[in-house]
Amino acid sequence: MTEPLDLARLQHRLAEFAAARNWQPHHTPKNLAAALSVEASELVEIFQWLTPEESARVMADPGTAHRVEDEVADVLAYLLQFCGTLGIDPLAALAAKIDRNERRFPVAGDKGGDEPGQLTDS
Amino acid sequence: MTEPLDLARLQHRLAEFAAARNWQPHHTPKNLAAALSVEASELVEIFQWLTPEESARVMADPGTAHRVEDEVADVLAYLLQFCGTLGIDPLAALAAKIDRNERRFPVAGDKGGDEPGQLTDS
Amino acid sequence: MTEPLDLARLQHRLAEFAAARNWQPHHTPKNLAAALSVEASELVEIFQWLTPEESARVMADPGTAHRVEDEVADVLAYLLQFCGTLGIDPLAALAAKIDRNERRFPVAGDKGGDEPGQLTDS
Amino acid sequence: MTEPLDLARLQHRLAEFAAARNWQPHHTPKNLAAALSVEASELVEIFQWLTPEESARVMADPGTAHRVEDEVADVLAYLLQFCGTLGIDPLAALAAKIDRNERRFPVAGDKGGDEPGQLTDS
Repeated sequence: MTEPLDLARLQHRLAEFAAARNWQPHHTPKNLAAALSVEASELVEIFQWLTPEESARVMADPGTAHRVEDEVADVLAYLLQFCGTLGIDPLAALAAKIDRNERRFPVAGDKGGDEPGQLTDS
Repeated sequence: MTEPLDLARLQHRLAEFAAARNWQPHHTPKNLAAALSVEASELVEIFQWLTPEESARVMADPGTAHRVEDEVADVLAYLLQFCGTLGIDPLAALAAKIDRNERRFPVAGDKGGDEPGQLTDS
Repeated sequence: MTEPLDLARLQHRLAEFAAARNWQPHHTPKNLAAALSVEASELVEIFQWLTPEESARVMADPGTAHRVEDEVADVLAYLLQFCGTLGIDPLAALAAKIDRNERRFPVAGDKGGDEPGQLTDS
Repeated sequence: MTEPLDLARLQHRLAEFAAARNWQPHHTPKNLAAALSVEASELVEIFQWLTPEESARVMADPGTAHRVEDEVADVLAYLLQFCGTLGIDPLAALAAKIDRNERRFPVAGDKGGDEPGQLTDS
């Protein structure tokens, strides 16, 4: 494959794939958001009984590594299709969010004990 | 910002952001997968009581549009950080998955009644 | 089975089942919460491509009905085990929440267009 | 309140609460399953950055304890409403599942290294 491996190209392939199978009626934003969350949970399922240490070693087993990569692909696929139906540019959305977070959470004022989760609840 | 808006650059900014705040101990693959699923559910929450038709119009309201873009950014941020900790290339994973699906689900043999969800459970 | 079919009895059977298999080390509150969310997503997966009307008819197909009941059982099982590890009485928690909601959302002041989701974010 | 604190009574109160506010049109099985998964994720969110040890101590902080109980109430509320719309008895579903698991996973043949997650994927 000589195509450049970029998001826009993959998004286009996903849209063609769905259109060729007449799936657009199923692909409402509501359904694609649900499908995205289901795939994210399938990723969680791989890790749910692992210790933190075990979770850092999942790629050492080829079968588990393939399963993790497969779920990553599914999450990204539904995220791109969701963004496609609503005209959202996911890279621009993320760049804007990082810009906002860098202003809101300057390093100098950061305490070591803060939890990372606070950033995402803007 | 003159930086190219690509995934690798955003992934690098996220890694620097987390490193500057000493969050790496929290950022196990297990925790990042959970955080990804939590953000995906926050996207679902926006749509959970909407009809399919209402869900297609969410970007018409500026406040809701911002909320949707913000959750998209959070999902993508955790997906990139998850991939970063495990050395996964999300674009390569998705390209490989689309290749497999195109072989497994040729258009000619496809029935209109098939559900799209079957593709993701490889 | 002549045992009364109540929550406490089922919770006790689940605890004995896990203890007999030495699963307690895996059953941290964090892991059980993740497992609960994974099972809830498996319930969502059954409905993700259905229209609202189709979703109301899932019990008409015996295979789908069994799958739905099985996921309901899994969600309830992990909820009871989660509550067991933390000493939470789920019935008392729900009764207290309904009491609060009845005070906070009197029927007289309710507009028909309100969305139900607002109640759960107290 | 002298009413017995049982599931059927709480399910009845939830149904009356929703009916008084005309929410039934929103309460399709599809939407209630999504709402259940969103609440389960809000429970996960409380634990997502905690170590296993920290997660076992969440009830020691009154604010966090209240938040955990509140999410437990939300999960149970949507589970009961979901079951109500489809005519499912959640206690009977769980009892039947435990019966099946006790037959399928006898203790004598159990290895210490087995993971609990395998049970729920019947």
